[in-house]
Amino acid sequence: MKFRFRLSGYSPEEEAVYGTVLTLGNGHLGVRGEVELEPTIYGTTIAGVYDDAPYFYREIVNAPRVVGLQLMFNGEPLNLSTHRILRYERELDIEKGTLKTWVELETRKGVRIDYESTRIVHGKRKNLIILRFRLRASQDGLLTILNPIELDTANPSYRGEILVRHYSVEELKCDGEAVYAHIRTLDGRYHVGIASSIFTPWNHERSTVKNTRLIGEVLTLNVEGGKEYEFVKYVVVSSIGRGDMRSAVLRELRESKRKGFERLYEEHVEYWKKIWDRAWVEIEGDEDAERGLAFSLFHLVQSLPRDGRISLTARGIHGFGYRGHVFWDTEIYALPFFMATMPEEARRMLVYRYNNLNAARENARLNGYEGAQFPWESADDGREATPPLVPLDMRGGKTVRIYTGEEEHHITADIAYAVDLYYRLTGDEEFIIRHGLEIIMETARFWASRVRYDERKGYVIEKVIGPDEYHEHVNNSFFTNLMAKHNLLLGVSYFREGLGKSWWGEVIERIGVTEREVQRWLEIAEGLYLPPQRDDGVYEEFDGYFALMDYTVDPYGLGEGRLPEDVRENLGKTQLIKQADVIAAQYLLKDWFDLDTIGRNFEYYIVRTTHASSLSMPTYAIVASWLGNMELAYDYFMKCAYIDLKNIYGNTADGFHLATAGGLWQILFRGFCGVDFKGDTLKVSPNLPEKWKSVRLRFFFRGSWLELKVKHGEVHIKMLEGTKPIGVEAFGSEAVLQPGGEVVLRP
Amino acid sequence: MKFRFRLSGYSPEEEAVYGTVLTLGNGHLGVRGEVELEPTIYGTTIAGVYDDAPYFYREIVNAPRVVGLQLMFNGEPLNLSTHRILRYERELDIEKGTLKTWVELETRKGVRIDYESTRIVHGKRKNLIILRFRLRASQDGLLTILNPIELDTANPSYRGEILVRHYSVEELKCDGEAVYAHIRTLDGRYHVGIASSIFTPWNHERSTVKNTRLIGEVLTLNVEGGKEYEFVKYVVVSSIGRGDMRSAVLRELRESKRKGFERLYEEHVEYWKKIWDRAWVEIEGDEDAERGLAFSLFHLVQSLPRDGRISLTARGIHGFGYRGHVFWDTEIYALPFFMATMPEEARRMLVYRYNNLNAARENARLNGYEGAQFPWESADDGREATPPLVPLDMRGGKTVRIYTGEEEHHITADIAYAVDLYYRLTGDEEFIIRHGLEIIMETARFWASRVRYDERKGYVIEKVIGPDEYHEHVNNSFFTNLMAKHNLLLGVSYFREGLGKSWWGEVIERIGVTEREVQRWLEIAEGLYLPPQRDDGVYEEFDGYFALMDYTVDPYGLGEGRLPEDVRENLGKTQLIKQADVIAAQYLLKDWFDLDTIGRNFEYYIVRTTHASSLSMPTYAIVASWLGNMELAYDYFMKCAYIDLKNIYGNTADGFHLATAGGLWQILFRGFCGVDFKGDTLKVSPNLPEKWKSVRLRFFFRGSWLELKVKHGEVHIKMLEGTKPIGVEAFGSEAVLQPGGEVVLRP
Repeated sequence: MKFRFRLSGYSPEEEAVYGTVLTLGNGHLGVRGEVELEPTIYGTTIAGVYDDAPYFYREIVNAPRVVGLQLMFNGEPLNLSTHRILRYERELDIEKGTLKTWVELETRKGVRIDYESTRIVHGKRKNLIILRFRLRASQDGLLTILNPIELDTANPSYRGEILVRHYSVEELKCDGEAVYAHIRTLDGRYHVGIASSIFTPWNHERSTVKNTRLIGEVLTLNVEGGKEYEFVKYVVVSSIGRGDMRSAVLRELRESKRKGFERLYEEHVEYWKKIWDRAWVEIEGDEDAERGLAFSLFHLVQSLPRDGRISLTARGIHGFGYRGHVFWDTEIYALPFFMATMPEEARRMLVYRYNNLNAARENARLNGYEGAQFPWESADDGREATPPLVPLDMRGGKTVRIYTGEEEHHITADIAYAVDLYYRLTGDEEFIIRHGLEIIMETARFWASRVRYDERKGYVIEKVIGPDEYHEHVNNSFFTNLMAKHNLLLGVSYFREGLGKSWWGEVIERIGVTEREVQRWLEIAEGLYLPPQRDDGVYEEFDGYFALMDYTVDPYGLGEGRLPEDVRENLGKTQLIKQADVIAAQYLLKDWFDLDTIGRNFEYYIVRTTHASSLSMPTYAIVASWLGNMELAYDYFMKCAYIDLKNIYGNTADGFHLATAGGLWQILFRGFCGVDFKGDTLKVSPNLPEKWKSVRLRFFFRGSWLELKVKHGEVHIKMLEGTKPIGVEAFGSEAVLQPGGEVVLRP
Repeated sequence: MKFRFRLSGYSPEEEAVYGTVLTLGNGHLGVRGEVELEPTIYGTTIAGVYDDAPYFYREIVNAPRVVGLQLMFNGEPLNLSTHRILRYERELDIEKGTLKTWVELETRKGVRIDYESTRIVHGKRKNLIILRFRLRASQDGLLTILNPIELDTANPSYRGEILVRHYSVEELKCDGEAVYAHIRTLDGRYHVGIASSIFTPWNHERSTVKNTRLIGEVLTLNVEGGKEYEFVKYVVVSSIGRGDMRSAVLRELRESKRKGFERLYEEHVEYWKKIWDRAWVEIEGDEDAERGLAFSLFHLVQSLPRDGRISLTARGIHGFGYRGHVFWDTEIYALPFFMATMPEEARRMLVYRYNNLNAARENARLNGYEGAQFPWESADDGREATPPLVPLDMRGGKTVRIYTGEEEHHITADIAYAVDLYYRLTGDEEFIIRHGLEIIMETARFWASRVRYDERKGYVIEKVIGPDEYHEHVNNSFFTNLMAKHNLLLGVSYFREGLGKSWWGEVIERIGVTEREVQRWLEIAEGLYLPPQRDDGVYEEFDGYFALMDYTVDPYGLGEGRLPEDVRENLGKTQLIKQADVIAAQYLLKDWFDLDTIGRNFEYYIVRTTHASSLSMPTYAIVASWLGNMELAYDYFMKCAYIDLKNIYGNTADGFHLATAGGLWQILFRGFCGVDFKGDTLKVSPNLPEKWKSVRLRFFFRGSWLELKVKHGEVHIKMLEGTKPIGVEAFGSEAVLQPGGEVVLRP
C-alpha cells in the first residue's frame, strides 16, 4: 500500500489540485490527472514544445487533450455533476506508474453504471498513452463512446480568463482505423502528430465526428445489463517533426495496438521497476515520510525530459506555473538527486545549458558583459524568458515590474556549481572536456566582467537580486558574491588541473582562455568583497541589510499571510527574507565555513525567513540537521514531502513543486544521512530523526553503484557495482570500500 | 421572394461570414447566424454589456451561447462534417425577422435525417429567443437532444488565438423545468440570467448535464422512422440586474412557453410589419437595389439598442469588430435614417451621448480643454476607448500606435451636428431643452478652448486627424475646422434663439453659458482659419496636403490592395486619402458651398480616395448624384447595398457595416431623391438612376408622417399623418402640403 495514493470523492473545485498530484508523465509527455470523463482546460504537455506568448516571452504549449472520453448510455451523457455518484475514487500507483479511476453512478433514469479505468503514460515508449477502461450497465441499452482529440486547449495567461491558443490545426483525418490530427505551433517551430483509437473485442459500430473543437471516433454498441465490457484506448503523440508524420504516427499506433495492453503494461511496469531500483529510499520507522518522499521523487522522475531540447522545469510537465521555464531550481535543487541516482539523465540537463551557451553569450553581450550569462528563466531557446512586467488587472494597465531577469545573476554561478558537483560526484571527464569546461570558463569570464573595482572595498558586485527576492537592486549580496567567487575559482582550478592533459590544447583553443585571463580571475576572486561578519559571527545578507527594520517570525510558520498588512506591503524595507539566502550559500559552500559560524547565521536568519518560496525549507532543514535541530529539520522535511499532496502553498494546481522534491531528497541525503565527499572519499555523518530506525538508499559515486544504510550510530555501505575502491569516513573512523565489498562503521 | 435571402452549401470556412449576414437581433440581444448544430466561438451579444479588456479598454462581451443544439441518433452525433450532406440551406426572411435552416443528412450508418428549424430573436420581447425545430429520421431509433447554455464563450483579442472570457458563472441550476445560468462580468458591473428549455408534445425522458463548459438539458425519445417530431426551444436572456433574477427569468420563460410558438411568432411578425411600414423603400425597376437596401436596413434596425446604456455600434450586435465601440459612424452615417423613420429611437441614441456628457467633460479636462470632448471610440461608460496601441505579434512586442483617440477630434462637432439635424428634422423642442442644448453648448465650449490664435492665420486647430486617417498630426483639417466652426455657430444660434423663451433661464443656469462667452464663440467661428482655396476651386485637405506626392486611382476600384507596395507603405506621404474628407464636409455643410465648387473638389478628390473605409462611398455617391454622375453614384450604391452579402471588404465576419447601411439610405434619400429641408419646407431634387422607374419611401418631417414617391421628372408627396402644413419645393415650383393632403410637382 505504500506505493498507492488514493483520493476519493468528486469535487469539481478540487479537480485542478488532483490534476497536478495525479499527473502521469514520461518526461516527454505529461497528462494531468483530471478525470477523463469531464472536460478540463488541461490538454497534453509535450516537453520542449513552446510558443511565443504575451508577456512571458515563450511558454510551454497546452497541446490537445487526448485522454478525454465522453460516454452516453441510452442517449444520456454520463457526466459526474448531474447523476448520483455512488463511488468516485482515483488511485495513483507510483510503483507501476498508473492512475486508476473508479466511477459508479446511478443515472437520473435509475441505471447503474460502473466504470473503471487504468491510465498509463508509457515509460519506454515516449509517444504512447494508454487508457484501458471497463464498463458495466445495470440494464441492456445503447452505449456511445466518443473518443476525441480535443483541439481547443489553450494556455491561461496572466489571468485565467485570458486564454492563448498556441497552435493551428494543419490536418485532420478520420477513417475506420483511427483519428489523426496534425498541429503546428503558431510560431511555426513545432509540429505535433496525434493519433488515437479505441480497441474493443466487442461488436460495435464506429463513426466519426469532426468540428472546430475536436475530432473523434464514436463507438456505439448495444450492451447487456450486468455484463462487463472492456476497451483500450491507444494514443500516440509525436513531435518528431515534419516529413510524413501521419504515416509514422499511425504506424506507431498500429504497432501499439498489435502489441496489446498486457504486454505494453508489463514493459511499462518494468521501466518503473528499474527507476525504483535506483531511486527508492527506504525509511524504516516512518512510513509517512517514506511515502511522501517516494511520491515526490515519482513526480520528479516523471518530469525529466528525454532530450536536450529542454531541461527540467520549475513545475514539471504538471502545469503552467512559471510557464514551463527552467530556473536555478533545476541545477541547485533537483539535479543532485539525478546526479546521484541517474547521472546520465543529470548530464543531459547540463548539456541543455551547454546547448544554450550561445544564447547565454548573446545575453551577456546584450547586458554589456563578457562570457556567458545564463538567463534567470530559460525556455526552449535559452534566451532570457523572465517577464519584465506582468499585468495585475485585465486591461494590463496596472503591472508589476519584475527585476529578476535583469538582476538575479547568481543563476550563472549556480550552473557552474552544478557542473562541478556533477563532475565531483561522477568523475565524468568526457563531459567536462566536451561541455563542462566551456561552461565553467565562460561563466567565470562573465563574473570577471560583472565586477567593479572599488578603491575601498575591492571587487564589488552591484545591483543584484539574491535568492531572497524581497530585496532588489542590492549591492554585494552574500550569496551572489560567494557563488561568483566560487565560479571564478572553479575557472582557475579547472584550468590549472587541465594543464598538461592530452586534450587540453584543443579545449583551450575552442574556449580561447589564457593564463593571463585566469590569473585575473584569481585576483578578482581573492579581492572580491564580502559583506563583513559581525562580532557575533552573522554575515550581512547584502550591503545595508542590518540597517533595515527588524521583524521576526515563528520558524514553524509559513508564507506571508501571517504578516501584518503594513509589513507585507513593505517587505523590502524589513529584514524579513523570502527564502534561505546566506544559509543557502553556507550549505552549498559548507567547506568555507565552520559549523559554529553556520549555526550563528542559522539562528539569525531562520526567524527572519517567511519561506514564501518553496525552495527555502529544504536548505534550512539540511543545515538544521547538521546543527542537531532535528525537530525543525523533520518538520520541514514532512512539509516538503507533502507540499503538493496537502497543497501547502495553495498553488498546487499550477504544477508540482519539483525544486522541493529534489530538495527533499537532499535533506535526506545531505542532511539526515550527512553524506559529503572529497575526491574519492565519502563522508557520512548521520543525523536521523529520532523516530526513524534506518534509512536505506542507493546512489552512484564516481562510477560505483553503492547502497547506503544509515541507522542511529551505524553506517553500512556496500558497493553493488564498481571497480575502484572508495574511501569511507564516519564517526571519525575511516575505511576503504572495495568493489563488491561492504563497510560498517560505528562510533 | 424579395424579402428572403437564401444561402446554400455547408462550408465551415464560410460560416463566419454567414454568421454575420444571418444575424438576428432585437437591439437588446444579438445572435449570429452560425448553424445551431455545430460549435462556434460566437455566443450571444447583449447590448450594453461590456467588460475591461486588454488593449481595447472595454469591449462588448461574448456572452454564453444559447442557440446551440447537439443531436444524436442511435448514439451517433449528427454533426455536419462527417456525414453526407444532402441539403444545407439557410434562409433569412427580413420581412418576418426569421432565420430558417434545412439540413438533410445521410449518416455513416445510412440513416437519413431531415432537420428544419426557425430561429427568432423576438422583436417585442427583448429577452426572448426561440428556436422551433422539426426532425424526421428514416428509421426507428433513439434520438438525443442536448440543449446547452454554453459557458465557455470568449472574445477574440488582438489575435484570434488569444481569447478573453469576460464572465464568471455565479449560479447554475437544472431541474425538470429548465436550465438556468447566472453570469457576472469580471468587472462586476453586469449580471445576466439565462434560462432555456425545450418543449415538445412527444413523449420523452429528460435529464441534465453540467460541467465546466455547459449546463444543458438532455431529451431522449424513441422516434418512429418517417415521422416528424417538433420541438420548441425557448431561451430568456435578461441583464436586468441582481435581485431575484432567477425567479424573474424563469417566470418569463414560463410565460413564453405558455404563450406558445404560434402566438409569439405572430407578435414578432407584427413587430417587423410595423418596422417595415416605416422603413421599407420601394424601388421600382431594380429589385436588386431594393433587396440590397432592405437587407442593409434590416441589419441596421436589428442593431439599434433599446435603452440609453449604449448607442448603435460600428459593427452592430453582429460581431466583435471595433469591440462594440460607438464612433461618429452612428451620428453621421446611421442616425439620419432613424431620425427620419423612427425619431424616438434616434433620440435615444443622442440621449446616450447626453448621458455621457460628464465623461466627455472629464475627457476634455484630461486633455487640457474645456467643455465636453466626446471620445473617438465610446463604450458603455463614455470614456475614451480607443486603444493607443495594438500589438502586431503574439508577444505584444511589436505594436502599432493608434492616434485617433488622441487626435480625431471632429467627433465632438459631429455629435453637435447630429443634435441639430435631429432638431431640424423633428422639431423636438423638449429634447433640445432637456438634452440637446447642453450638448451643443458644451461642445462649442470645447472648440473655443481647442483653437489657438495665430497672428498670421487667425484661429487655427493643430495636430488633428480628419476623416482621412492616412494623415496624422495635421494642422487645419478642412473637415475638422469647418465642423468646429459649425459647432461654434450652432452654439451661437441656439443661444440666441433660446433667449426670451420661458425655459431659457433654467437651461442657461444649468449650463452656465454667458452672452460674453457666446460672443467669443462667434468671434472664433468667424476668425477660424480654413486652408485656402486654389484658383481651380479645390480646397486643401489640411495645411501642406498639396505638397505631398501625388498619386491617383481608379474611382471604380476599392481598397489599398491595388496600390504598389511602396505607396501602400507610405500612404501618409501621398495625397491618397482613405475616405471622403473635404467632400464629407461639403456634403454635411452643403449650404456653405455652391455646386460648382463641390464639383471641382469632387473631381479632385475622387481619384485620390482609396475607399479603404466603408464610410467613404456613401458620401461620394450622394455628391456624385447631385453632380449628375449617376453611373458612379449607382455603382457605389450597389457596392454599399451588397457590402456584407458579398463580403466586399473581406471583413464581414467581424460584424455588419452599419455606417454603410445608414449611408446607403442617405444616398437614396439625400442623393437620388435629393431631399433637403429648411425650417418647415422640404425640397426635393430627384436624381434617380436611369433604370429606376420610381422610389417610394416614408419619413417623418417635423412631426408629420409623409410618403414620398419620386420618379424621373415627378415628385409625389402625401401627408399620411400630421396636423401642420408643410412647404414643398421641387423643379423650381413650390406648393403647400396640407394635413391629409398630397402634392404632385413636375418640371
